[in-house]
Amino acid sequence: MAKKAIEVKRFSAGVIAEFIQRVLIAAEMPRGDAQVVATLMTEADVNGSDGHGVFRLPGYIRRIKEGGLNLNPEIHIEREKSGMALVDGDNAQGHLVMRYCAELAIKKAKSSGVAWVGAHDSNHAGPAALYAKMPLDENMIGLYVAIGNANHMPPWGGIEMLLSTNPIAIAVPGMNEGPIVLDMATTVAAYGKVKTAAQRGEEMPEGWMIDRQGQPLTDPNKSDQGFLMPIGGPKGYGLALMFGLLAGTLNGAAFGKDVVDFNSDFSTPTNTGQFIVAIDIAAFGDVDTFKRNVDAVYRAMKASPTLPGYDEVLLPGEQSHKKRQDREQNGVPIHSGLLHSLNKTASELGVATLE
Amino acid sequence: MAKKAIEVKRFSAGVIAEFIQRVLIAAEMPRGDAQVVATLMTEADVNGSDGHGVFRLPGYIRRIKEGGLNLNPEIHIEREKSGMALVDGDNAQGHLVMRYCAELAIKKAKSSGVAWVGAHDSNHAGPAALYAKMPLDENMIGLYVAIGNANHMPPWGGIEMLLSTNPIAIAVPGMNEGPIVLDMATTVAAYGKVKTAAQRGEEMPEGWMIDRQGQPLTDPNKSDQGFLMPIGGPKGYGLALMFGLLAGTLNGAAFGKDVVDFNSDFSTPTNTGQFIVAIDIAAFGDVDTFKRNVDAVYRAMKASPTLPGYDEVLLPGEQSHKKRQDREQNGVPIHSGLLHSLNKTASELGVATLE
Repeated sequence: MAKKAIEVKRFSAGVIAEFIQRVLIAAEMPRGDAQVVATLMTEADVNGSDGHGVFRLPGYIRRIKEGGLNLNPEIHIEREKSGMALVDGDNAQGHLVMRYCAELAIKKAKSSGVAWVGAHDSNHAGPAALYAKMPLDENMIGLYVAIGNANHMPPWGGIEMLLSTNPIAIAVPGMNEGPIVLDMATTVAAYGKVKTAAQRGEEMPEGWMIDRQGQPLTDPNKSDQGFLMPIGGPKGYGLALMFGLLAGTLNGAAFGKDVVDFNSDFSTPTNTGQFIVAIDIAAFGDVDTFKRNVDAVYRAMKASPTLPGYDEVLLPGEQSHKKRQDREQNGVPIHSGLLHSLNKTASELGVATLE
Repeated sequence: MAKKAIEVKRFSAGVIAEFIQRVLIAAEMPRGDAQVVATLMTEADVNGSDGHGVFRLPGYIRRIKEGGLNLNPEIHIEREKSGMALVDGDNAQGHLVMRYCAELAIKKAKSSGVAWVGAHDSNHAGPAALYAKMPLDENMIGLYVAIGNANHMPPWGGIEMLLSTNPIAIAVPGMNEGPIVLDMATTVAAYGKVKTAAQRGEEMPEGWMIDRQGQPLTDPNKSDQGFLMPIGGPKGYGLALMFGLLAGTLNGAAFGKDVVDFNSDFSTPTNTGQFIVAIDIAAFGDVDTFKRNVDAVYRAMKASPTLPGYDEVLLPGEQSHKKRQDREQNGVPIHSGLLHSLNKTASELGVATLE
């Protein structure tokens, strides 16, 4: 597959957020909600999560148009104890549900030390790191797990696609370094990366996907003929399965056979499940001591001599941080294929395009 | 490396537990504690965790002899809120500390719904699954993470061994199926597997370890010339790092440079960190409904057609369950090298050998 010539334009975060907001409002999302969602989606782009920011807007709009999303939800606590809550997302946009859950977990952790908040009837909420990072400002550690919104992986050794990329994110604050922010799919590649590769006309490296005969699959346009590979073989399968039971089954959300493929079905409620854990560092000890110790770990990792072929050791979140610095200064790069798709969506709704 | 001829004898769980107990008592561990530790160590063997059961006894005894373990500890709660506790293990045998923590997490989760209990000044506690499974009988989900007791892995791209295999275990009950029990190192192979390969005279497959030039290392006797590989490359490194921050740094336990190699230093307290989370299913919804849904997930995975070369799909914990059935009926296999080492330890303490 020949790599297409790709034109890339850069747009400031503010311009992108305004664009997303006016598109969502034109699709009849209430203004306040549209602002929250636009801010979080743009935040994803600024952090370098190209598969989880404005890229998703056309899909979100199609879901709204086809009646698959509740634009006037009552997100609420369904069950609650001191160390946990179960939230009914009422089929709201996932960003709204998970911001609610993160804020609830933070509030509860202030008195309980650790609080676990799960949700059902949520929806796609963007990159996992967005929510794992929310507790950081309160000197808390955040941990977030989600059920992916389409099954692209079979159980290990199988060929029936019963599992998604079910990602985990963990964010830990440092004093002068970090924060250290892990955000990873339990598959070798997230499906968003396959989609961006297809849109950019790029080939996938071997190891991302295999076909139904177990052979490597490298053409992202043929992704429906194969499946994503878990990290570490059966281990990644095990993680995806257990995260699915915790974020899905435990919350009464869809998992396994019940997952709605949000790339092909835009009208059935997805009943997405996610959970977030907020861990109050002060409950365990002195916050500054902890942060200094995190700095020491950070610096020790950076100071390691490297293997042949590696320039430096990176900490989780460091690449995202570098992208953020670039994008805050130079804008978020949007390639021509995506720009065309975004502006088609805007034009159909009769609002100004992204220029 | 030629594979040595290996003689294997089988011993019943009861005989092994009695053996461990009399060795620990002869090493001056109080009788009640010795019984708890012997039971949990034997449980590890029966479950098929060959690198984490009686195999570890000679090392534990050497640590006791060299003054590295507190035989009369006061394991106690250092800090506590409704959703968490921090436990001071007082340098006790890890099995005692983590049983204490698991019981505390279960007790707290009965009122708080979810409880997170971390420990510092613990020690090696055997396989992670032992503790993740403890909440199952109370209709709870268990999640356990530990810092490994020796650094065998550098940060991704580096060569300084700052990380251990830092395993995670998650146990989820079903109604008629399961439980589903994941127990995995964040490395491709746990170091215990390298040690058993060396003791059995077996070669390691490529992918377990690399040397300092980044080349595959397959001779387990040269394991000190290389390091373990993380699952999924930088992802496994990220998981090991974050689990280390949560199980170590947050608890005030050793992590990174501070980890004491318990295979070479038997006198310095290890200050091992672990944590366990107990999740009360009833706090989230109806327990029977949950268990039936877990059964449905289990059966759906099993029912998947397989890839060429695979006979069936396995669920996490299924292989361990099969080993358990075999070992309960036919005894735990102990190969001659291990038997020799165990009986040398027993003879030095003047107690009856394992026959």
